[in-house]
Amino acid sequence: MIDAFSRLPGVGRRSAERLAFHLLKADPEEALGLARAIEDLKKLVRHCRICFNLADDELCSICRDPRRDRSSVLVVEQPKDLLAIEETGSYTGLYHVLMGRLSPLEGVGPEDLTIEALIERVRSAPEGELCEVILGLNPTLEGDGTGLYLGERLRGEDVRVTRLARGLPTGGQLELANRAVLAEAIAGRRSLDDGF
Amino acid sequence: MIDAFSRLPGVGRRSAERLAFHLLKADPEEALGLARAIEDLKKLVRHCRICFNLADDELCSICRDPRRDRSSVLVVEQPKDLLAIEETGSYTGLYHVLMGRLSPLEGVGPEDLTIEALIERVRSAPEGELCEVILGLNPTLEGDGTGLYLGERLRGEDVRVTRLARGLPTGGQLELANRAVLAEAIAGRRSLDDGF
Repeated sequence: MIDAFSRLPGVGRRSAERLAFHLLKADPEEALGLARAIEDLKKLVRHCRICFNLADDELCSICRDPRRDRSSVLVVEQPKDLLAIEETGSYTGLYHVLMGRLSPLEGVGPEDLTIEALIERVRSAPEGELCEVILGLNPTLEGDGTGLYLGERLRGEDVRVTRLARGLPTGGQLELANRAVLAEAIAGRRSLDDGF
Repeated sequence: MIDAFSRLPGVGRRSAERLAFHLLKADPEEALGLARAIEDLKKLVRHCRICFNLADDELCSICRDPRRDRSSVLVVEQPKDLLAIEETGSYTGLYHVLMGRLSPLEGVGPEDLTIEALIERVRSAPEGELCEVILGLNPTLEGDGTGLYLGERLRGEDVRVTRLARGLPTGGQLELANRAVLAEAIAGRRSLDDGF
Protein backbone atom coordinates (compact mmCIF):
# COMPACT_ATOMS: atom_id res chain seq x y z
CA MET A 1 0.00 0.00 0.00
CA ILE A 2 2.92 2.32 0.78
CA ASP A 3 4.30 1.47 -2.67
CA ALA A 4 0.95 2.29 -4.29
CA PHE A 5 0.71 5.66 -2.54
CA SER A 6 4.30 6.61 -3.28
CA ARG A 7 3.66 6.20 -7.02
CA LEU A 8 1.20 9.13 -6.87
CA PRO A 9 2.60 12.48 -8.07
CA GLY A 10 3.98 14.62 -5.25
CA VAL A 11 3.81 11.81 -2.69
CA GLY A 12 7.19 10.71 -1.40
CA ARG A 13 8.02 7.59 0.59
CA ARG A 14 7.55 9.36 3.94
CA SER A 15 4.17 10.84 3.01
CA ALA A 16 3.06 7.47 1.67
CA GLU A 17 3.91 5.88 5.01
CA ARG A 18 2.00 8.58 6.87
CA LEU A 19 -1.07 8.08 4.62
CA ALA A 20 -0.96 4.31 5.04
CA PHE A 21 -0.74 4.52 8.84
CA HIS A 22 -3.53 7.10 8.89
CA LEU A 23 -5.83 4.71 7.01
CA LEU A 24 -4.78 1.80 9.23
CA LYS A 25 -5.93 3.70 12.31
CA ALA A 26 -8.92 5.36 10.61
CA ASP A 27 -12.57 4.48 10.94
CA PRO A 28 -13.29 1.59 8.47
CA GLU A 29 -16.00 3.77 6.80
CA GLU A 30 -13.42 6.43 5.90
CA ALA A 31 -10.97 3.93 4.45
CA LEU A 32 -13.61 2.02 2.47
CA GLY A 33 -15.12 5.33 1.28
CA LEU A 34 -11.81 6.27 -0.29
CA ALA A 35 -11.48 2.82 -1.88
CA ARG A 36 -14.96 3.07 -3.39
CA ALA A 37 -14.34 6.61 -4.69
CA ILE A 38 -11.26 5.35 -6.53
CA GLU A 39 -13.17 2.38 -7.96
CA ASP A 40 -16.03 4.63 -9.12
CA LEU A 41 -13.55 7.00 -10.73
CA LYS A 42 -12.15 4.20 -12.86
CA LYS A 43 -15.55 2.62 -13.55
CA LEU A 44 -17.72 5.70 -14.16
CA VAL A 45 -15.51 8.39 -15.61
CA ARG A 46 -14.89 8.13 -19.32
CA HIS A 47 -14.34 10.46 -22.26
CA CYS A 48 -17.18 12.16 -24.10
CA ARG A 49 -17.80 10.50 -27.47
CA ILE A 50 -17.99 13.91 -29.19
CA CYS A 51 -15.47 16.20 -27.49
CA PHE A 52 -13.33 13.86 -25.31
CA ASN A 53 -14.03 15.88 -22.16
CA LEU A 54 -14.38 13.83 -18.96
CA ALA A 55 -17.91 12.44 -18.77
CA ASP A 56 -20.04 10.18 -16.59
CA ASP A 57 -22.08 9.05 -19.60
CA GLU A 58 -21.62 8.67 -23.34
CA LEU A 59 -21.72 12.46 -23.73
CA CYS A 60 -20.25 15.02 -21.31
CA SER A 61 -22.43 17.52 -19.48
CA ILE A 62 -21.46 20.30 -21.92
CA CYS A 63 -22.25 18.39 -25.13
CA ARG A 64 -25.56 17.27 -23.54
CA ASP A 65 -26.52 20.81 -22.49
CA PRO A 66 -29.09 22.21 -24.99
CA ARG A 67 -28.31 25.79 -23.88
CA ARG A 68 -24.73 25.68 -25.18
CA ASP A 69 -24.03 27.63 -28.35
CA ARG A 70 -23.31 25.07 -31.07
CA SER A 71 -21.73 27.56 -33.47
CA SER A 72 -18.23 27.41 -31.98
CA VAL A 73 -15.81 24.72 -30.81
CA LEU A 74 -12.90 25.70 -28.56
CA VAL A 75 -9.96 23.29 -28.88
CA VAL A 76 -7.93 22.66 -25.69
CA GLU A 77 -5.12 20.28 -24.80
CA GLN A 78 -6.54 18.78 -21.59
CA PRO A 79 -9.82 18.56 -19.63
CA LYS A 80 -8.24 20.82 -16.97
CA ASP A 81 -7.84 23.60 -19.56
CA LEU A 82 -11.54 23.26 -20.36
CA LEU A 83 -12.33 23.63 -16.64
CA ALA A 84 -10.21 26.79 -16.42
CA ILE A 85 -12.13 28.33 -19.32
CA GLU A 86 -15.51 27.23 -17.93
CA GLU A 87 -14.64 29.01 -14.67
CA THR A 88 -14.38 32.34 -16.48
CA GLY A 89 -18.07 32.07 -17.39
CA SER A 90 -17.30 33.96 -20.58
CA TYR A 91 -17.56 31.11 -23.10
CA THR A 92 -20.85 29.42 -23.91
CA GLY A 93 -19.91 27.28 -26.91
CA LEU A 94 -18.66 23.70 -27.20
CA TYR A 95 -15.18 22.22 -26.77
CA HIS A 96 -12.85 19.66 -28.25
CA VAL A 97 -10.16 18.09 -26.04
CA LEU A 98 -7.05 17.00 -27.98
CA MET A 99 -5.76 14.85 -25.09
CA GLY A 100 -2.29 16.39 -25.42
CA ARG A 101 -0.25 18.42 -27.88
CA LEU A 102 2.10 17.56 -30.71
CA SER A 103 5.55 16.93 -29.30
CA PRO A 104 8.17 15.61 -31.73
CA LEU A 105 10.66 15.32 -28.86
CA GLU A 106 8.37 13.08 -26.84
CA GLY A 107 7.21 11.20 -29.93
CA VAL A 108 3.64 12.52 -29.81
CA GLY A 109 2.28 12.77 -33.35
CA PRO A 110 -1.14 13.72 -34.78
CA GLU A 111 -2.33 10.11 -34.56
CA ASP A 112 -1.84 10.15 -30.77
CA LEU A 113 -4.31 13.04 -30.38
CA THR A 114 -7.99 13.41 -31.21
CA ILE A 115 -7.24 15.48 -34.31
CA GLU A 116 -8.95 13.19 -36.84
CA ALA A 117 -12.09 13.23 -34.69
CA LEU A 118 -12.00 17.06 -34.73
CA ILE A 119 -11.65 17.24 -38.51
CA GLU A 120 -14.44 14.71 -38.91
CA ARG A 121 -16.58 16.69 -36.47
CA VAL A 122 -16.09 19.90 -38.47
CA ARG A 123 -16.88 18.13 -41.76
CA SER A 124 -19.95 16.32 -40.51
CA ALA A 125 -21.50 19.30 -38.67
CA PRO A 126 -25.02 20.13 -39.91
CA GLU A 127 -24.91 22.76 -42.68
CA GLY A 128 -24.44 26.28 -41.24
CA GLU A 129 -24.28 25.17 -37.58
CA LEU A 130 -20.55 25.32 -36.82
CA CYS A 131 -19.04 28.71 -37.71
CA GLU A 132 -15.81 28.96 -35.71
CA VAL A 133 -13.03 26.76 -34.35
CA ILE A 134 -11.13 28.58 -31.58
CA LEU A 135 -7.62 27.26 -30.88
CA GLY A 136 -7.12 27.43 -27.10
CA LEU A 137 -3.77 25.70 -26.82
CA ASN A 138 -1.10 26.58 -24.29
CA PRO A 139 0.99 29.64 -25.29
CA THR A 140 4.12 27.50 -25.50
CA LEU A 141 6.33 26.28 -28.32
CA GLU A 142 4.52 22.94 -28.52
CA GLY A 143 1.10 24.56 -28.16
CA ASP A 144 1.92 26.91 -31.03
CA GLY A 145 3.22 24.03 -33.14
CA THR A 146 -0.01 22.14 -32.55
CA GLY A 147 -2.04 25.26 -33.38
CA LEU A 148 -0.16 25.79 -36.64
CA TYR A 149 -0.75 22.15 -37.60
CA LEU A 150 -4.48 22.40 -36.82
CA GLY A 151 -4.69 25.65 -38.79
CA GLU A 152 -3.21 23.84 -41.80
CA ARG A 153 -5.53 20.86 -41.41
CA LEU A 154 -8.60 23.10 -41.12
CA ARG A 155 -7.67 25.30 -44.07
CA GLY A 156 -10.28 24.84 -46.76
CA GLU A 157 -12.97 23.70 -44.33
CA ASP A 158 -15.99 25.98 -44.11
CA VAL A 159 -15.17 27.45 -40.64
CA ARG A 160 -13.40 30.52 -39.35
CA VAL A 161 -10.30 29.48 -37.37
CA THR A 162 -9.17 31.79 -34.55
CA ARG A 163 -6.77 31.59 -31.64
CA LEU A 164 -6.87 33.04 -28.13
CA ALA A 165 -5.31 36.49 -27.78
CA ARG A 166 -1.70 36.76 -26.64
CA GLY A 167 -0.13 39.69 -24.84
CA LEU A 168 0.12 41.35 -21.45
CA PRO A 169 -1.80 39.45 -18.77
CA THR A 170 -4.59 41.61 -17.36
CA GLY A 171 -3.79 42.83 -13.86
CA GLY A 172 -0.05 42.38 -14.29
CA GLN A 173 2.76 44.92 -14.47
CA LEU A 174 4.40 45.87 -17.75
CA GLU A 175 7.87 46.08 -16.17
CA LEU A 176 7.56 42.51 -14.85
CA ALA A 177 6.55 40.99 -18.19
CA ASN A 178 9.32 39.04 -19.88
CA ARG A 179 10.78 39.98 -23.26
CA ALA A 180 8.74 37.47 -25.25
CA VAL A 181 5.48 38.71 -23.73
CA LEU A 182 6.33 42.37 -24.36
CA ALA A 183 7.50 41.68 -27.90
CA GLU A 184 4.24 39.87 -28.65
CA ALA A 185 2.20 42.65 -26.99
CA ILE A 186 3.88 45.19 -29.28
CA ALA A 187 3.53 43.07 -32.43
CA GLY A 188 -0.13 42.29 -31.69
CA ARG A 189 -1.20 45.82 -30.72
CA ARG A 190 -4.70 46.79 -31.70
CA SER A 191 -6.35 49.97 -32.84
CA LEU A 192 -8.57 51.80 -30.36
CA ASP A 193 -11.05 52.09 -33.25
CA ASP A 194 -11.92 48.43 -32.50
CA GLY A 195 -12.79 49.33 -28.90
CA PHE A 196 -10.34 49.70 -26.02
CA MET B 1 22.55 58.95 8.69
CA ILE B 2 20.64 55.94 10.00
CA ASP B 3 17.48 58.02 9.63
CA ALA B 4 18.38 58.91 6.04
CA PHE B 5 19.06 55.28 5.12
CA SER B 6 15.90 53.99 6.78
CA ARG B 7 13.79 56.31 4.63
CA LEU B 8 14.88 54.36 1.51
CA PRO B 9 12.36 51.79 0.23
CA GLY B 10 12.95 48.30 1.59
CA VAL B 11 15.53 49.46 4.17
CA GLY B 12 14.39 48.93 7.75
CA ARG B 13 15.95 50.41 10.90
CA ARG B 14 18.25 47.40 11.41
CA SER B 15 19.50 47.41 7.81
CA ALA B 16 20.04 51.16 8.03
CA GLU B 17 22.22 50.67 11.10
CA ARG B 18 24.19 47.94 9.37
CA LEU B 19 24.76 50.18 6.32
CA ALA B 20 25.82 53.13 8.48
CA PHE B 21 28.32 51.03 10.48
CA HIS B 22 29.66 49.52 7.26
CA LEU B 23 30.38 52.98 5.85
CA LEU B 24 31.89 54.10 9.18
CA LYS B 25 34.44 51.28 9.01
CA ALA B 26 34.88 51.42 5.23
CA ASP B 27 37.76 52.85 3.26
CA PRO B 28 37.11 56.65 2.88
CA GLU B 29 37.30 56.26 -0.92
CA GLU B 30 34.34 53.86 -0.90
CA ALA B 31 32.21 56.09 1.32
CA LEU B 32 33.01 59.28 -0.63
CA GLY B 33 32.44 57.43 -3.93
CA LEU B 34 28.90 56.62 -2.85
CA ALA B 35 28.31 60.22 -1.74
CA ARG B 36 29.53 61.57 -5.11
CA ALA B 37 27.41 59.06 -7.05
CA ILE B 38 24.33 60.30 -5.20
CA GLU B 39 25.25 63.94 -5.83
CA ASP B 40 25.85 63.28 -9.53
CA LEU B 41 22.54 61.49 -9.77
CA LYS B 42 20.72 64.54 -8.49
CA LYS B 43 22.85 67.01 -10.46
CA LEU B 44 23.19 65.24 -13.80
CA VAL B 45 20.06 63.17 -14.30
CA ARG B 46 17.06 65.06 -15.53
CA HIS B 47 14.04 64.45 -17.71
CA CYS B 48 14.17 64.67 -21.51
CA ARG B 49 12.54 67.89 -22.76
CA ILE B 50 10.61 65.97 -25.43
CA CYS B 51 9.64 62.58 -23.94
CA PHE B 52 10.40 62.94 -20.18
CA ASN B 53 12.61 59.83 -20.18
CA LEU B 54 15.64 60.03 -17.86
CA ALA B 55 18.41 61.95 -19.59
CA ASP B 56 21.91 63.27 -18.94
CA ASP B 57 21.35 66.20 -21.28
CA GLU B 58 18.44 68.26 -22.57
CA LEU B 59 17.33 65.34 -24.74
CA CYS B 60 17.50 61.66 -23.80
CA SER B 61 19.63 59.18 -25.74
CA ILE B 62 16.56 57.87 -27.62
CA CYS B 63 15.24 61.25 -28.77
CA ARG B 64 18.81 62.18 -29.83
CA ASP B 65 19.32 58.96 -31.80
CA PRO B 66 18.88 59.68 -35.55
CA ARG B 67 18.28 55.95 -36.25
CA ARG B 68 15.04 55.83 -34.24
CA ASP B 69 11.84 55.63 -36.26
CA ARG B 70 10.03 58.94 -35.76
CA SER B 71 6.67 57.68 -37.04
CA SER B 72 5.51 56.21 -33.72
CA VAL B 73 5.43 57.26 -30.07
CA LEU B 74 4.91 54.59 -27.39
CA VAL B 75 3.36 56.04 -24.22
CA VAL B 76 4.48 54.48 -20.92
CA GLU B 77 3.85 55.32 -17.28
CA GLN B 78 7.44 55.29 -15.99
CA PRO B 79 11.03 55.30 -17.29
CA LYS B 80 11.39 51.72 -16.01
CA ASP B 81 8.58 50.60 -18.37
CA LEU B 82 10.50 52.20 -21.24
CA LEU B 83 13.60 50.23 -20.21
CA ALA B 84 11.60 46.97 -20.17
CA ILE B 85 10.40 47.61 -23.73
CA GLU B 86 13.87 48.65 -24.92
CA GLU B 87 15.22 45.33 -23.64
CA THR B 88 12.95 43.41 -26.00
CA GLY B 89 14.75 45.00 -28.95
CA SER B 90 11.49 44.84 -30.88
CA TYR B 91 10.55 48.52 -30.84
CA THR B 92 12.51 51.13 -32.75
CA GLY B 93 10.26 54.19 -32.42
CA LEU B 94 10.11 57.01 -29.87
CA TYR B 95 8.52 57.15 -26.41
CA HIS B 96 6.55 59.45 -24.15
CA VAL B 97 6.78 58.99 -20.39
CA LEU B 98 3.62 60.11 -18.54
CA MET B 99 5.36 60.14 -15.14
CA GLY B 100 2.52 58.15 -13.57
CA ARG B 101 -1.08 57.20 -14.30
CA LEU B 102 -4.44 58.76 -13.56
CA SER B 103 -5.54 57.74 -10.08
CA PRO B 104 -8.66 59.40 -8.72
CA LEU B 105 -8.17 57.59 -5.39
CA GLU B 106 -4.68 59.01 -4.94
CA GLY B 107 -5.69 62.40 -6.32
CA VAL B 108 -3.59 62.11 -9.49
CA GLY B 109 -5.31 64.03 -12.30
CA PRO B 110 -4.34 64.78 -15.91
CA GLU B 111 -2.52 67.97 -14.85
CA ASP B 112 -0.12 65.90 -12.70
CA LEU B 113 1.07 63.93 -15.72
CA THR B 114 2.78 64.94 -18.96
CA ILE B 115 -0.44 64.59 -20.95
CA GLU B 116 -0.60 68.18 -22.25
CA ALA B 117 2.98 67.85 -23.49
CA LEU B 118 1.98 64.66 -25.36
CA ILE B 119 -1.02 66.32 -27.02
CA GLU B 120 1.12 69.31 -27.95
CA ARG B 121 3.80 66.95 -29.30
CA VAL B 122 1.25 65.19 -31.52
CA ARG B 123 -0.17 68.50 -32.79
CA SER B 124 3.16 70.13 -33.50
CA ALA B 125 4.79 67.12 -35.22
CA PRO B 126 5.97 67.88 -38.77
CA GLU B 127 3.27 67.07 -41.34
CA GLY B 128 3.16 63.31 -42.05
CA GLU B 129 5.96 62.38 -39.64
CA LEU B 130 4.03 60.93 -36.67
CA CYS B 131 1.59 58.19 -37.72
CA GLU B 132 0.88 56.20 -34.55
CA VAL B 133 0.58 56.66 -30.80
CA ILE B 134 0.88 53.28 -29.02
CA LEU B 135 -0.57 53.18 -25.49
CA GLY B 136 1.78 51.02 -23.42
CA LEU B 137 0.21 51.52 -19.99
CA ASN B 138 0.07 48.84 -17.31
CA PRO B 139 -2.74 46.28 -17.83
CA THR B 140 -4.41 47.41 -14.59
CA LEU B 141 -7.59 49.30 -13.73
CA GLU B 142 -5.76 52.61 -13.47
CA GLY B 143 -3.65 51.92 -16.56
CA ASP B 144 -6.82 51.20 -18.54
CA GLY B 145 -8.49 54.34 -17.18
CA THR B 146 -5.50 56.40 -18.26
CA GLY B 147 -5.53 54.72 -21.69
CA LEU B 148 -9.22 55.46 -22.17
CA TYR B 149 -8.65 59.10 -21.23
CA LEU B 150 -5.73 59.42 -23.66
CA GLY B 151 -7.80 57.77 -26.38
CA GLU B 152 -10.48 60.41 -25.86
CA ARG B 153 -7.97 63.26 -25.85
CA LEU B 154 -6.30 62.02 -29.04
CA ARG B 155 -9.56 61.44 -30.89
CA GLY B 156 -9.69 63.78 -33.85
CA GLU B 157 -5.92 64.18 -34.02
CA ASP B 158 -4.33 62.93 -37.21
CA VAL B 159 -2.72 59.78 -35.71
CA ARG B 160 -3.69 56.14 -35.36
CA VAL B 161 -4.04 55.23 -31.66
CA THR B 162 -3.30 51.63 -30.66
CA ARG B 163 -2.74 49.75 -27.42
CA LEU B 164 -0.50 46.82 -26.55
CA ALA B 165 -2.09 43.39 -26.99
CA ARG B 166 -3.68 41.72 -23.99
CA GLY B 167 -4.14 38.00 -23.48
CA LEU B 168 -2.27 34.86 -22.50
CA PRO B 169 1.36 35.56 -21.62
CA THR B 170 3.66 33.73 -24.04
CA GLY B 171 5.36 30.75 -22.41
CA GLY B 172 2.72 30.44 -19.68
CA GLN B 173 0.15 27.74 -19.03
CA LEU B 174 -3.50 28.23 -19.90
CA GLU B 175 -4.70 26.42 -16.76
CA LEU B 176 -2.67 28.78 -14.55
CA ALA B 177 -4.03 31.98 -16.12
CA ASN B 178 -6.59 33.74 -13.96
CA ARG B 179 -10.18 34.32 -15.01
CA ALA B 180 -9.66 37.90 -16.18
CA VAL B 181 -6.75 36.90 -18.41
CA LEU B 182 -8.65 33.96 -19.93
CA ALA B 183 -11.79 36.03 -20.45
CA GLU B 184 -9.76 38.70 -22.25
CA ALA B 185 -7.92 36.07 -24.30
CA ILE B 186 -11.28 34.70 -25.48
CA ALA B 187 -12.79 38.14 -26.17
CA GLY B 188 -9.69 39.29 -28.06
CA ARG B 189 -9.16 36.13 -30.13
CA ARG B 190 -7.83 36.66 -33.62
CA SER B 191 -8.35 34.99 -36.95
CA LEU B 192 -5.57 32.79 -38.26
CA ASP B 193 -6.10 34.60 -41.57
CA ASP B 194 -4.12 37.47 -39.99
CA GLY B 195 -1.17 35.12 -39.36
CA PHE B 196 -0.78 32.77 -36.40
